[in-house]
Amino acid sequence: MTVLILTCEEDVTADMVVVHLNAAGVPVVRLDPADLTSTVALSGEFVHGAFRGHLSSAGRLVSLDGLRSVWVRRPGAAAARAAQPSAWLTEEASQALYGMLRGTGVRWMNHPDASVRARHKPWQLRLAQRSGLPVPATLITTFPQAARDFAERYPDLVVKPVSGAHPQDPPRAVPTTRVPPGADFAAVAYGPTLLQRRIAKRADIRLTAVGERILAARKDTAPGADPDVVDVRYAPSTTPWRPADVPPRLADAVRAYLRDAELAYGAFDFAEDADGTWWFLECNQSGQFGFVEVDTGQPIARTIAEWLAGPAPRPGPRSADRCGSAAS
Amino acid sequence: MTVLILTCEEDVTADMVVVHLNAAGVPVVRLDPADLTSTVALSGEFVHGAFRGHLSSAGRLVSLDGLRSVWVRRPGAAAARAAQPSAWLTEEASQALYGMLRGTGVRWMNHPDASVRARHKPWQLRLAQRSGLPVPATLITTFPQAARDFAERYPDLVVKPVSGAHPQDPPRAVPTTRVPPGADFAAVAYGPTLLQRRIAKRADIRLTAVGERILAARKDTAPGADPDVVDVRYAPSTTPWRPADVPPRLADAVRAYLRDAELAYGAFDFAEDADGTWWFLECNQSGQFGFVEVDTGQPIARTIAEWLAGPAPRPGPRSADRCGSAAS
Repeated sequence: MTVLILTCEEDVTADMVVVHLNAAGVPVVRLDPADLTSTVALSGEFVHGAFRGHLSSAGRLVSLDGLRSVWVRRPGAAAARAAQPSAWLTEEASQALYGMLRGTGVRWMNHPDASVRARHKPWQLRLAQRSGLPVPATLITTFPQAARDFAERYPDLVVKPVSGAHPQDPPRAVPTTRVPPGADFAAVAYGPTLLQRRIAKRADIRLTAVGERILAARKDTAPGADPDVVDVRYAPSTTPWRPADVPPRLADAVRAYLRDAELAYGAFDFAEDADGTWWFLECNQSGQFGFVEVDTGQPIARTIAEWLAGPAPRPGPRSADRCGSAAS
Repeated sequence: MTVLILTCEEDVTADMVVVHLNAAGVPVVRLDPADLTSTVALSGEFVHGAFRGHLSSAGRLVSLDGLRSVWVRRPGAAAARAAQPSAWLTEEASQALYGMLRGTGVRWMNHPDASVRARHKPWQLRLAQRSGLPVPATLITTFPQAARDFAERYPDLVVKPVSGAHPQDPPRAVPTTRVPPGADFAAVAYGPTLLQRRIAKRADIRLTAVGERILAARKDTAPGADPDVVDVRYAPSTTPWRPADVPPRLADAVRAYLRDAELAYGAFDFAEDADGTWWFLECNQSGQFGFVEVDTGQPIARTIAEWLAGPAPRPGPRSADRCGSAAS
């Protein structure tokens, strides 16, 4: 049974996982959907009530029935590198490839539907609350007056994107930024704005969850750090990430979140306050983990490899690719 | 409790349903996400473990907790008609709107995740087979040799898009076309191609499913009709659609399909052969129904209105917007 990895060619994070799969003797096919119709080909036949499908990449053939799991890492747009790319060809190739894969009973890290859903920040906040994770007071609004009222109740705020990275080419991360006192919120009317109570943090926590396994790391806020630099990605730092223990109640809440989100992988960001409370900021279903592994030595890549190599699902009588199969 | 309809301004099909909702005294808010930040506004606050959200459209305010159901009809891209539209604003507005709606326990027709999944043709064919619907032999391939082998086994073929409508502006339907004898399949290598055994049909069947309710219509193939014109949408016809009885086993199979697809609405196309067998061609989760209602007098719009006005779901302890809630 083969592990299928969908990602672009230059992906050192995927390389880290492939090393472990190779060492364990687990067959791997790695391909980029962007190469469809050039070096990647597919075929599926529905005849007499049966389905037979296969993929080929660089001359290597794998049957869809022979797939154990699919890791959707950083795939390119389908057929983007075809001889004559077009929006139509991308749509046709994407529907063909993912349509066939969705018809298998394969385990996904992560299922495409679960991934799309998990990106929605308002949905994340609500699920985090329900899962028992502390969430800082947050407002998402297009009403300037609602923003002003919120800023009166919570005078120390940050602003961040609702959606994540800016969709320019290449996509650009938008830093979380502290709202200056007396800010004018009139522009809120022109675009949904996410305001959140700033957590005076003593550390950033990055928690990586792979199936049931949870690995956390912390980076202490430097003494005398500029409180206006909120986003750890943009903070100058010589402090490395260190392994951190996860309080059992928090681990339970994280597992509840993943179960309800039907995610097999999630990278959680928390801010630890002076009382030691971990405040949920977000869960990125495709978050990077290489930098944590390098700093902490935590075996994240190996854990992912083990999950991907896990037992293939028993095909149920009606395993019709519901989301429910994503985190099973 | 209010029914929310997401659709563009000029949508006579939605109008047909609104008439019935109005007659039944069910509150309706109709808005186009394209109008976000111009005439549509939103706000959601996450404070002390509780969420309060509302939408406003043309000055009318509705609480997210007060929503009974959402009908995703033909919504425009979020904020597409804003004063200064951009891909970034569309992404932010879409995540904010759908993220908040996904956080409610509302009933969807259809749930966005179920809709995306249900468009995949290979997935449709596999689910139809498993649900007990007869599916004509079908090949989806980028291998010219696989196409040639298939054409040898099934000499009378049609070709159709894998993905549906061509994504030009406005999107254009691509007709299903008969493959001439001796066709050269070399071009299959340049794009996934869907080939299907042609059903020599004596009628087209359009079956509209709304929740558990199934309404079918048939249009007889005119005697002496050109067999090269396969696609009923493009066939010259003076024959109207007539109501048709649905064989009980087929109705069971359709309900099984919808249940597994987690769809509350689906428009199924079948081809009826000389033996009276209904061959599954596709299920369009957003298929039109106005033309069937006009021809047959079947109460499709009223049935949709009744479904939308149905009892609000009881919020479970952890109703976290899994797909599972879509067809409940």
